[in-house]
Amino acid sequence: MSRNKLIADIQEKRTCLCVGLDTDLAKIPTHLKGRPDAILEFNKAIIDATADCCVAYKINTAFYECLGAKGWDLMEATLAYIPKNIFTIADAKRGDIGNTSTMYAKAFFETLSFDAITVSPYMGSDSVKPFLEYTNKTTIVLALTSNAGSIDFEQLKTGDEFVYEKVLKTSKEWGTPDNMMYVVGATKASSLAQIRAIVPEHFLLIPGVGAQGGDIDEVLKYGGIPGQTGLLVNSSRQILYASSGEDFAEKARAEALKLLGKIS
Amino acid sequence: MSRNKLIADIQEKRTCLCVGLDTDLAKIPTHLKGRPDAILEFNKAIIDATADCCVAYKINTAFYECLGAKGWDLMEATLAYIPKNIFTIADAKRGDIGNTSTMYAKAFFETLSFDAITVSPYMGSDSVKPFLEYTNKTTIVLALTSNAGSIDFEQLKTGDEFVYEKVLKTSKEWGTPDNMMYVVGATKASSLAQIRAIVPEHFLLIPGVGAQGGDIDEVLKYGGIPGQTGLLVNSSRQILYASSGEDFAEKARAEALKLLGKIS
Repeated sequence: MSRNKLIADIQEKRTCLCVGLDTDLAKIPTHLKGRPDAILEFNKAIIDATADCCVAYKINTAFYECLGAKGWDLMEATLAYIPKNIFTIADAKRGDIGNTSTMYAKAFFETLSFDAITVSPYMGSDSVKPFLEYTNKTTIVLALTSNAGSIDFEQLKTGDEFVYEKVLKTSKEWGTPDNMMYVVGATKASSLAQIRAIVPEHFLLIPGVGAQGGDIDEVLKYGGIPGQTGLLVNSSRQILYASSGEDFAEKARAEALKLLGKIS
Repeated sequence: MSRNKLIADIQEKRTCLCVGLDTDLAKIPTHLKGRPDAILEFNKAIIDATADCCVAYKINTAFYECLGAKGWDLMEATLAYIPKNIFTIADAKRGDIGNTSTMYAKAFFETLSFDAITVSPYMGSDSVKPFLEYTNKTTIVLALTSNAGSIDFEQLKTGDEFVYEKVLKTSKEWGTPDNMMYVVGATKASSLAQIRAIVPEHFLLIPGVGAQGGDIDEVLKYGGIPGQTGLLVNSSRQILYASSGEDFAEKARAEALKLLGKIS
């Protein structure tokens, strides 16, 4: 899906909400647990309930890989169930030497046909570029993440800038705002204005709204691109586990609408 | 498998060779290609031919993921075929926020029972620690990798040291030499003495011998720990694709023995 289509979707639906499908068998409602395809059934209900109030779904690969080959099947079936006109992200944080990143790109852009994947920049240019060769797909590079550990290396100073700022400046030359985005943790909203100055045209994927505690108003104020929004704001646990009862999908929708109200 | 057992294996087999199972359907011998389980058949033959002349196998997850759920099955079957007394590494380069890294740890240490996994340090302490909670397993943190792109961020200066040196100094406090190792690219053998000074007791996993061009003599000279070796030296393509004919396993063994000769 193209950047222009995504911008049009955001404007039409009046939201930049991305729903994170970090589906954990231990956390889904009890009445679903005994069923053979419990996770898929849960995901389908969440997708049915939220598809008209979000512009993207983000599938966190870890939650499927922990189930082995069966989990990979569930990921594929979940992806297939998402309406074709909604942007899909494999939150996979991959990245390796060139020939290996080529295989990861094939896994997520061809074998599974996600629109986008998150990648780790640690290993540098040749670990990211194989993803960017898919110019009709989107490579989402980790810049500043929302977790406490981001202070350890992302926020080290290199010269007069942070490592994550150097990641932004260096990596933005590898692709274009049409095939690249950045992960920027919402809990660092105070840094958003500086980040936006470095990458004025790239979409930012903001995790950490909801369970991770980011402030959505600050994100919109400092992180947006006038006229294009330029943001995908993700919420996972707050939506997925809004209720542990039979009304889980209804409550998930209510949470999504609440976030939509804040975002639009 | 414990560090002491690994050291004993190295001393008994007189090698620190790790064989990388980066099996690419496009590169395996033509006579195997039509068969339904071509990759598994190839892997089994390679394992049969090399098990007595290596101390570890490293499965590169990307090469299996690109085949979807079927690939995950092949990875599991390959892992199951490796003799139980040989150290196994999932070369997965995972790393995410805490609750997600917990799921990755479960995927590779429980659902699949690898002895070790490679992880990316970019997101910091809480992205690595969930792996270290498995104290009977080994978490192998990327420090300095062997690819050209390592210059982009790993080799940035922060204060008077490189980012990868800071990664070593900070992360070694999170675990112990019993449950942590580091990835250090052999093509940077000149940096090995400095790295060994920072982590005098940790095993180093050295990729990049063979196809990636590292110099094995320098690795042994500057990277070893006296009396314990302290190294796993990986070779993948040079062994796997030593011949594209029916003698591929025999030629793979010959390559492994050649490396063994250099290493012991």
